[in-house]
Amino acid sequence: MKSDVEIAQEANMKPIAQVAAELGLTDDDLELYGKYKAKVSLAAWERLKDRPDGKLILVSAINPTPAGEGKTTNTVGIGDALRRLGKKVVIALREPSLGPCFGVKGGAAGGGYAQVVPMEDINLHFTGDIHAVTTAHNLLAAVLDNHLHHGNELNIDPRRITWRRVMDLNERALRNIVLGLGGKANGVPREGGFDISVASEMMAILCLASDLEDMKRRISRIIVAYTYDGKPVTVADLKVAGALTLLFKDAIKPNLVQTLENTPAFIHGGPFANIAHGCNSVMASKFALKLADILVTEAGFGADLGAEKFIDIKCRFAGLKPDAVVLVTTVRALKSHGGVAKADLGRENMAALEKGLANLTKHIENVGKFGLPAVVAINAFPTDTPAELAFVEEKCAALGAEVALSEVWAKGGAGGEALAQKLLAAIEKPNKFRFLYDGKLPIKDKIAAIAKEIYGADGVNYTPAADKTIQELTAMGFDKTPVCMAKTQYSLSDDAAKLGRPAGFTVTVREVRVAAGAGFLVAITGEIMTMPGLPKKPAAEAMDIDNSGKIVGLF
Amino acid sequence: MKSDVEIAQEANMKPIAQVAAELGLTDDDLELYGKYKAKVSLAAWERLKDRPDGKLILVSAINPTPAGEGKTTNTVGIGDALRRLGKKVVIALREPSLGPCFGVKGGAAGGGYAQVVPMEDINLHFTGDIHAVTTAHNLLAAVLDNHLHHGNELNIDPRRITWRRVMDLNERALRNIVLGLGGKANGVPREGGFDISVASEMMAILCLASDLEDMKRRISRIIVAYTYDGKPVTVADLKVAGALTLLFKDAIKPNLVQTLENTPAFIHGGPFANIAHGCNSVMASKFALKLADILVTEAGFGADLGAEKFIDIKCRFAGLKPDAVVLVTTVRALKSHGGVAKADLGRENMAALEKGLANLTKHIENVGKFGLPAVVAINAFPTDTPAELAFVEEKCAALGAEVALSEVWAKGGAGGEALAQKLLAAIEKPNKFRFLYDGKLPIKDKIAAIAKEIYGADGVNYTPAADKTIQELTAMGFDKTPVCMAKTQYSLSDDAAKLGRPAGFTVTVREVRVAAGAGFLVAITGEIMTMPGLPKKPAAEAMDIDNSGKIVGLF
Repeated sequence: MKSDVEIAQEANMKPIAQVAAELGLTDDDLELYGKYKAKVSLAAWERLKDRPDGKLILVSAINPTPAGEGKTTNTVGIGDALRRLGKKVVIALREPSLGPCFGVKGGAAGGGYAQVVPMEDINLHFTGDIHAVTTAHNLLAAVLDNHLHHGNELNIDPRRITWRRVMDLNERALRNIVLGLGGKANGVPREGGFDISVASEMMAILCLASDLEDMKRRISRIIVAYTYDGKPVTVADLKVAGALTLLFKDAIKPNLVQTLENTPAFIHGGPFANIAHGCNSVMASKFALKLADILVTEAGFGADLGAEKFIDIKCRFAGLKPDAVVLVTTVRALKSHGGVAKADLGRENMAALEKGLANLTKHIENVGKFGLPAVVAINAFPTDTPAELAFVEEKCAALGAEVALSEVWAKGGAGGEALAQKLLAAIEKPNKFRFLYDGKLPIKDKIAAIAKEIYGADGVNYTPAADKTIQELTAMGFDKTPVCMAKTQYSLSDDAAKLGRPAGFTVTVREVRVAAGAGFLVAITGEIMTMPGLPKKPAAEAMDIDNSGKIVGLF
Repeated sequence: MKSDVEIAQEANMKPIAQVAAELGLTDDDLELYGKYKAKVSLAAWERLKDRPDGKLILVSAINPTPAGEGKTTNTVGIGDALRRLGKKVVIALREPSLGPCFGVKGGAAGGGYAQVVPMEDINLHFTGDIHAVTTAHNLLAAVLDNHLHHGNELNIDPRRITWRRVMDLNERALRNIVLGLGGKANGVPREGGFDISVASEMMAILCLASDLEDMKRRISRIIVAYTYDGKPVTVADLKVAGALTLLFKDAIKPNLVQTLENTPAFIHGGPFANIAHGCNSVMASKFALKLADILVTEAGFGADLGAEKFIDIKCRFAGLKPDAVVLVTTVRALKSHGGVAKADLGRENMAALEKGLANLTKHIENVGKFGLPAVVAINAFPTDTPAELAFVEEKCAALGAEVALSEVWAKGGAGGEALAQKLLAAIEKPNKFRFLYDGKLPIKDKIAAIAKEIYGADGVNYTPAADKTIQELTAMGFDKTPVCMAKTQYSLSDDAAKLGRPAGFTVTVREVRVAAGAGFLVAITGEIMTMPGLPKKPAAEAMDIDNSGKIVGLF
C-alpha cells in the first residue's frame, strides 16, 4: 500500500494559474509561490464582492477517538465528488502546523486518494503564514519586555502579563520559563512561557479579519497585560499595531492549491480549536463563496466544538450562512465510543456500536438546533461488516438524517459520489439557519446555552476565579461578544473519559480569558494544552530528503 | 527629500521572469514568489555548471563608524553602473534580518537611488529563508530537550548544551532564560537562551552548502552538547539530520530580485559577520558567476572581518577567486576615525582626516596581502569639501590604489560610472590571489596570521579556557579548518575604542568554539553580542500599512 506522500508525489497537478483560471481568476489576481501554490490578491475582492454567494457545506464529526475519523480526508473527497457531479466547487481547509508534523502526525493534508497537494509544501512552511503569526506575536512580546526594560512608563505589572511567546513547534521545555535573567543589561526577570503558534490570538485575528484595516483595529485591541492598578494594557498603548499588521501584508491573502483531482482548495489560517475558533480564514471562505457554486469547509475537533464555534463565532462575525453539516464518523470510532479498546475495533460488536451511536445521534440533534440538515458520512474501513453499516444507516434514518458510505480515502472523489448526491439534495432544501444564542446575552447565559443545548449538561459551575473574571469583564464591557469554549475534544462533556453520550453531568468553567482582538471570550473547562510535546520517537526521525528534493517520512 | 521606501515604491520594476530571461534563465528555472521575486531551481545548475565563471568583485569597507559608510548602497550602485557600461552584471547581497528592521535600522536593502526592490518584501519575511533557519534551529533544540525528557539515553550533560534557541527579532529578555520549569511533565529544568536567527550555525551552513546532500552532511556534524564524560553529541546522534534538511528544501534555492534600475540581484542568506562568516550564500555566488560577466557582492562589517572571512572561509570552501576589492569609505567616516565627534563631522578638518585615513590605508595594504587590487569608493556627502576629497585621492594614489567618487545614493548607477570604469580596468589585470593562511596550520598559527597581518597586532594572548579548548579541539581533529574571528567591527584591534590604525596592541582570544557543521572554528575576542536589544523607541513604532497595502516607516 502506498503512503500518503507517495500518492501525493504521483499527483498530476495542473499549474495553479490554470486551476485559478477555471474559477475565473486572472493571472493578475494571483501571486504565485512556485508553480502550484498562489496567493489571491485582495484587489480581486473588489471585482467579486457583489456576486451572489455559493452554498456552504460544513464538514464536522463525532467526538474524536483514537480510531480516527477522517474529517479532512472527507472534506477533500466531498469536494472532488461534487466536482465529478459537474459542480463548481472550492474546498477550504486550515493550514497545518509544523509542531504536530514533526511530532506524531507527520503531515495533515487529507489522506489516501483524497489529499491536497503539493502536500510537502503545504506541510512545510507553505507560504509562510504561520511564520508571520509567530513573528508578529513575538515582536509584540519583545516590545512589551523592552517597555519594562526602558522604565515601564505604562506601569505594567510583570506578574500580570498575559501575552506569552509562541513557536510553531512542539516545545514542552518552553511551556514555563523564567526570562530576563543575566543582570541589568538583559531585561527584567519574570515568569513567561511559549504556546504553539496556532494558539496565538494573532492567528485567530488573521482568520477573522476582513481586510488589513480590520486586522489593525483588532490587533490594536489585544490586551497584553494589566497595570499595577488593574487596568488593561493594549497593543495600541505600545504603539506597534501598524508594525504588527505590516507583518501580515502577505499572510492575509488566501492561499490557493488543488486536490489530487485538481479541485481548487483554499488553505488559509489554522487557529486552535479549543482556546480559539478552529476554522480557516474568513477571507478564504468569502473568496470561495464568490468563486464557486459550493464551498466545502471543515472545522476543528467534533461538532460540539468545531461546528458550534464555526457557526456562533465565524459565521456570526463574517455574515456566513451554512446550508448543511456533514458529520463524519466511522464504525470503528462509534464502537470506540461504545467502550471497545483500540485493538478490538476490527471485530463486529453490535452492542458496543449501538451504545456508541448515541454520540453520533446527539450531534445530529445538535445540527438541527442550528436549523440545518445533517448528512452523515460513514468513512469506510475494510473491517466494517454489512450488519454494522446497515445498523448505522437505520439509526440515522430514524432521526431524519441522510447517510452515505464514503470511500474517498481509497477511491478519491469517485468514492464520495453517493454522499455528494445526498448533500446536493440537502443544500437545495430551504433551512432555518440560526445562531445558538444571542451575542448580547450575559456571559453566563451564553455559556449555559452551549453547555446545556449542545453538550447535554445539566448546568455549569464556575470557580471563584472564573466568577470574578466574569464580573470584571462585564464591568469592562467585554460581555457582548461570543464565547469560545475551551473543552476536551474527546467527550461531549468536560471530562475526556466520558464517551458516547454522557448525561447527568455539569460543566465546570475554571477560567475566563478575553481575546479582545479576536473579539471573543474564552471559557476554559479543564486543563487545556496550548503547547504540545514531542513523543519519545518523533516523526522527524523518519524524515529525509535527497539531492533531487525527493522527500520521505511525511504521511 | 524622499525616504528610501518612497523611492522604492516608485520603482519601475520589470517582472522578475523578464529580468531572469535577460540572464538566460527560462521560466522553468524559476519558482516565482509573486511577480517580482523568484527562487532559482537547483535543477538549472546542471545546465550552467560547466560554463566559465565571470569576474568577482567584493565590496568591503573601512571599519564602520557612527557616520555610516554605505557598503550595500555602493554594491547596488556599482552593479547598476557596470550595467550602464554594457556589462552583464549580477549583484549578490545578504538577506536582512527582521530584528534590526524593527529595532534601529528600519530596513536594509541599499539606500537612495541605489536599492534592491521590492524593498518591503525583502525586509519583511522575503521568501521565508530566515524563517526556515529559525524553524530548523529550534526543532533541533526541541528534539534535544525532548531527548533529556525521555530518559537521556545519550547521557547528555544539561550543563554542557551548546545549542541555544533562536528568534529573528531583537529579544534582550530571552538572552538568558531558565527553561523546562513546571514539574515532571514539562521537561528538564536547565539554563538556556536565544540568539538572533542570523547568528545560527544553520544560517552559516545554508550559506556554505553546495547542495542538499552537502547541507545534510554538514547538519549531521553539528555539535549540540557534550556528554557527562565529555564526548561531543551531534545531530547525527539525535537522528534528525534528514528532517532538519527537509526544512531547507526551498531555502537553499537562491532568491532573484532586481535593483531600481532592473539589474538582477541575488539576495540569499545572511550569517552574522562576527561569530560567522558574514556573506551571502555560496549557491547564489556560484549561480551569479555562471550567469553574468561580473558578480558584485559584499561582506559584513569592515574588510578586516568581512573581506578576510569572505576570502579565507567562503572562497576557500567554494573555490571562488575574487578579482578586485572595493573599499567603501566616506570623508565623514575617516574624520570619525580621526577622532571627530558625530556632530562635528560636517566641518572640514584636514588634520583629523589625515589621522583617520590611516584606517583606510591599512585596509588597502591588507587587500594587497590577498594579491588583489583595491579600488577605493568615496561615498559622496554634501558636506565633503574639495580639499578633503583631493587629499583622500592623493593618499590612495600614493599607495597605488585606484580611487573614485561614488554618487550612487543620489544618482543611482549614473553616479557610479567613474568608479565602475576603474573597476573594469582593475579586474582585467592579472592578479596573484592567495589565501592568508594554510588551512592545515595549527590553530594558533592561523589566528596569529590574521591578527598580525590583517589587524596589525603585535601578538595574540589566550585565556586559560581558550588554551584548553584549543588543545581539546586539536585532539578531536578540528584543527584543520579555517578560523572565523569574532571581533569588534569598530576597530582593527579587539578594542572598539581604538580608532584609525591602532599599533602596539595584542589581541586576546577568550573563547574558542567549533562550528563543526559549518566547518570552521570561531575565535572570540571580547564580548560578542549574538542577540541585540530594541532601543527605547523602536523603529516599529513609526511603521504602518493601509488597506491598499501601502507601507510607511521602512527606510
